[in-house]
Amino acid sequence: MRPYILISNDDGVDAPGILFLTRLMMQLGDVQVVAPEGPRSGQSSAITTDMPIRYRLLEKTEGLTRYSCTGTPTDCIKLAFDKILDRTPDLIVTGINHGSNAAINVIYSGTMGGTFEGCEHGVPSIGFSLCDHAYDADFSYFAPYILKISEETLKNGLPENVCLNVNAPIGKLKGVRVARQCKGRWMKEFEMIPDAHGREQHWLAGYFENFEPAAEDTDEWALNNGYVSVVPCVLDLTAHGFLKEMKSWNM
Amino acid sequence: MRPYILISNDDGVDAPGILFLTRLMMQLGDVQVVAPEGPRSGQSSAITTDMPIRYRLLEKTEGLTRYSCTGTPTDCIKLAFDKILDRTPDLIVTGINHGSNAAINVIYSGTMGGTFEGCEHGVPSIGFSLCDHAYDADFSYFAPYILKISEETLKNGLPENVCLNVNAPIGKLKGVRVARQCKGRWMKEFEMIPDAHGREQHWLAGYFENFEPAAEDTDEWALNNGYVSVVPCVLDLTAHGFLKEMKSWNM
Repeated sequence: MRPYILISNDDGVDAPGILFLTRLMMQLGDVQVVAPEGPRSGQSSAITTDMPIRYRLLEKTEGLTRYSCTGTPTDCIKLAFDKILDRTPDLIVTGINHGSNAAINVIYSGTMGGTFEGCEHGVPSIGFSLCDHAYDADFSYFAPYILKISEETLKNGLPENVCLNVNAPIGKLKGVRVARQCKGRWMKEFEMIPDAHGREQHWLAGYFENFEPAAEDTDEWALNNGYVSVVPCVLDLTAHGFLKEMKSWNM
Repeated sequence: MRPYILISNDDGVDAPGILFLTRLMMQLGDVQVVAPEGPRSGQSSAITTDMPIRYRLLEKTEGLTRYSCTGTPTDCIKLAFDKILDRTPDLIVTGINHGSNAAINVIYSGTMGGTFEGCEHGVPSIGFSLCDHAYDADFSYFAPYILKISEETLKNGLPENVCLNVNAPIGKLKGVRVARQCKGRWMKEFEMIPDAHGREQHWLAGYFENFEPAAEDTDEWALNNGYVSVVPCVLDLTAHGFLKEMKSWNM
């Protein structure tokens, strides 16, 4: 049986990145798309708790079914498992995200939120992102790496609670680096642009500061040096290394 | 100088949980509240990227300043650092959340999203949650533990990238357990309730299934046995244990 692959994203079901990823995945298996009807960038692992969600079939052809959903990427994956999928998928991929999800961006990303939810459902899951926010970004250099990483994941599986955060820089690529999440933070994050009535309003903006630019084992280093970065991420947030020390606290 | 304490939540600036937490923290230091103007439950680490946000002063008295913000809990913490705080706070606390943020709920919670953002800014940060969704929940049993855990955190600090996820069950409490994040998943997550026109719409609902109910070192075990659970969480999502093995993949 051909692999069964579920796809979602946070840029919306019609974004070029997910259309490109869908065509690639159809080379590997039967594809089920369940993605937000419009942009959900920066939605993290948000779930919709205060209103109902809806979904509808967009397209059903040989080897491909596409649904849009009014919810977040995490809602999409949950909904797929509860209402849409024919069987447990062999692989879940999200993206291709228009923009980097490296370093701390992994926690803000709706695309990675979808990846985490796939992982939480026990299926090998990968988020793919290109470091280019442009709507007409060129995903072509990234394509062979996406196929190879997906094939390796289908073949090897992933440990329980582990999923992959894969990012690529723009242009020609030198290869793949398995990396760790780089330390850093967004700085000067808000820009005040008055509204049409002259009232203050604040746009999220700013720049990312890399706190360890010389470290060669991070995702940011890989991206800044022309490599695809692959960070295995774990959904158990417990700081296991600090657990024992904390037990000595006087509580 | 008295400690300077920043507070946020995801239930909204006027929720009983944050008002209770604010009164407690005023026993320990000078308090700055920056919280969403209304409910933001399940917002995870979502950030507002597609529209500007606004904020306004609600109250300024001796030792207490309160702002509301139109954004998410993560936006609130970012905004506080960029626009509102007088100096770097000594402690950031979020909550008291109306409802559990134990086990996998840690990744969906807007309250924990605020905690993570505090941690990302290098300040010791704690999320407090009570396993009771009721608006008029009784936080009183939890109060001495909140004070003690906050005092210990002010005294000891926390390692880089580590923050605390603190949950309490309802009613009388037996003490504190330092615990790890329990494995488990939400099941049967959507409930179809037709709208006024008879059209399908789906509400997030379901129940949490604990995958390791016998393990006594988890947050769920602590909560089910009358203890306050304290899980140290780490913001580096890298699956360090899998990094080396993954380098043997053929990519």
